[in-house]
Amino acid sequence: MSAAVLIGDLMLSWCDEMLTTAILDSPSMSEHIGRARTYFDLCKTEVVAGQFLDVVGQTRQTVSWDEAMTVVRYKSAKYTVERPLHIGAALAGADDQPIDALSAVALPLGEAFQLRDDVLGVFGDPAVTGKPAGDDLREGKRTVLIARAHEPTDDAGRQLLRDSLGTAEGVPAVADLIRSCGALEAVEHDISALEAAADAAIDALGPAARDVLGPLALTATRRSR
Amino acid sequence: MSAAVLIGDLMLSWCDEMLTTAILDSPSMSEHIGRARTYFDLCKTEVVAGQFLDVVGQTRQTVSWDEAMTVVRYKSAKYTVERPLHIGAALAGADDQPIDALSAVALPLGEAFQLRDDVLGVFGDPAVTGKPAGDDLREGKRTVLIARAHEPTDDAGRQLLRDSLGTAEGVPAVADLIRSCGALEAVEHDISALEAAADAAIDALGPAARDVLGPLALTATRRSR
Repeated sequence: MSAAVLIGDLMLSWCDEMLTTAILDSPSMSEHIGRARTYFDLCKTEVVAGQFLDVVGQTRQTVSWDEAMTVVRYKSAKYTVERPLHIGAALAGADDQPIDALSAVALPLGEAFQLRDDVLGVFGDPAVTGKPAGDDLREGKRTVLIARAHEPTDDAGRQLLRDSLGTAEGVPAVADLIRSCGALEAVEHDISALEAAADAAIDALGPAARDVLGPLALTATRRSR
Repeated sequence: MSAAVLIGDLMLSWCDEMLTTAILDSPSMSEHIGRARTYFDLCKTEVVAGQFLDVVGQTRQTVSWDEAMTVVRYKSAKYTVERPLHIGAALAGADDQPIDALSAVALPLGEAFQLRDDVLGVFGDPAVTGKPAGDDLREGKRTVLIARAHEPTDDAGRQLLRDSLGTAEGVPAVADLIRSCGALEAVEHDISALEAAADAAIDALGPAARDVLGPLALTATRRSR
């Protein structure tokens, strides 16, 4: 594990090194690469902020939907979809208008992607997802599924979440509660609403964007692994 | 602890961001800052390499003086002394000649600094150093002190190192062995030899360098904390 963390540090450091070397070595491209670099820098700060909020969230008894979605936005949506699109657009010389239009696609798409991940993490088939079901529940993660479960459950349900979330034995009972109290259905609705928002934003970008971003959007949210 | 690691990641990321922003914002300085950046990049890669060697070293039964000194060089001497001097020299517009001359000062000085740290970590006064004595022994770190202890000890001594290094109960016995087998004296000789090498290299840089680097050298190696 220590070696894996070090490799991660080294790769992050080399990303920085490659981007800056490219700026210095390619004077004609340096303005574009410099703008891409701004989004890369934002991305690194945002993902640290999202991870910090996630870590703090684990220490709390309950989580609201807004809080859980803020973690999703900073830790996943910006890092996985929005900033990579901005980096690509900036390298291609885009000005502010398409950058903003890409955010309108990327944020709901990235959020839907993470919510799908949360659902698969509890209810996915381990043979397909390649990871054990219930890991998030075992670790006591305050995901959007858990936020949605806090809303409708009665005292008995809240007691079950307090006692069983974060334990290995409690995984089946918490998964049952998420289904029976309507939290799973609510998150599926969240995903659909976010997909619709991303879809409308792709339309606003025009037909060429649809060709490129349409399949990406489907892959991100309509998946079983 | 998680928050502390994240703050560290954020600070590292902001270092990269500040250096690159400085390159882009100061065209007249960009060549100097670009050269400084090269040493900053090397430093980050070297410290990861040194930490990796240190982690691997913890998994081994024994350590040679050469192996332990390689960790000292990459994890401490380059990171703490050599590369910071190079970064400063490059920012000031130095060419290759003073850069190499600074390495001749910085590597032995940085190595002596770390060996002093290793000695204080075992035999220092916790009230002065501010950290508990014996931490390295408790963690089973394969420091140069341990490498030097492996050389002269008999079978009983080697057995003691195998059984007690890395345990809390074994700290006093391992510390006694390091002293009685001559390892402490050997490392004090190592420190003196490295100090002499750094001192000669400072002389070679001339009197102005002596004024600046002389006190730095003394602070690094003749300290009790």
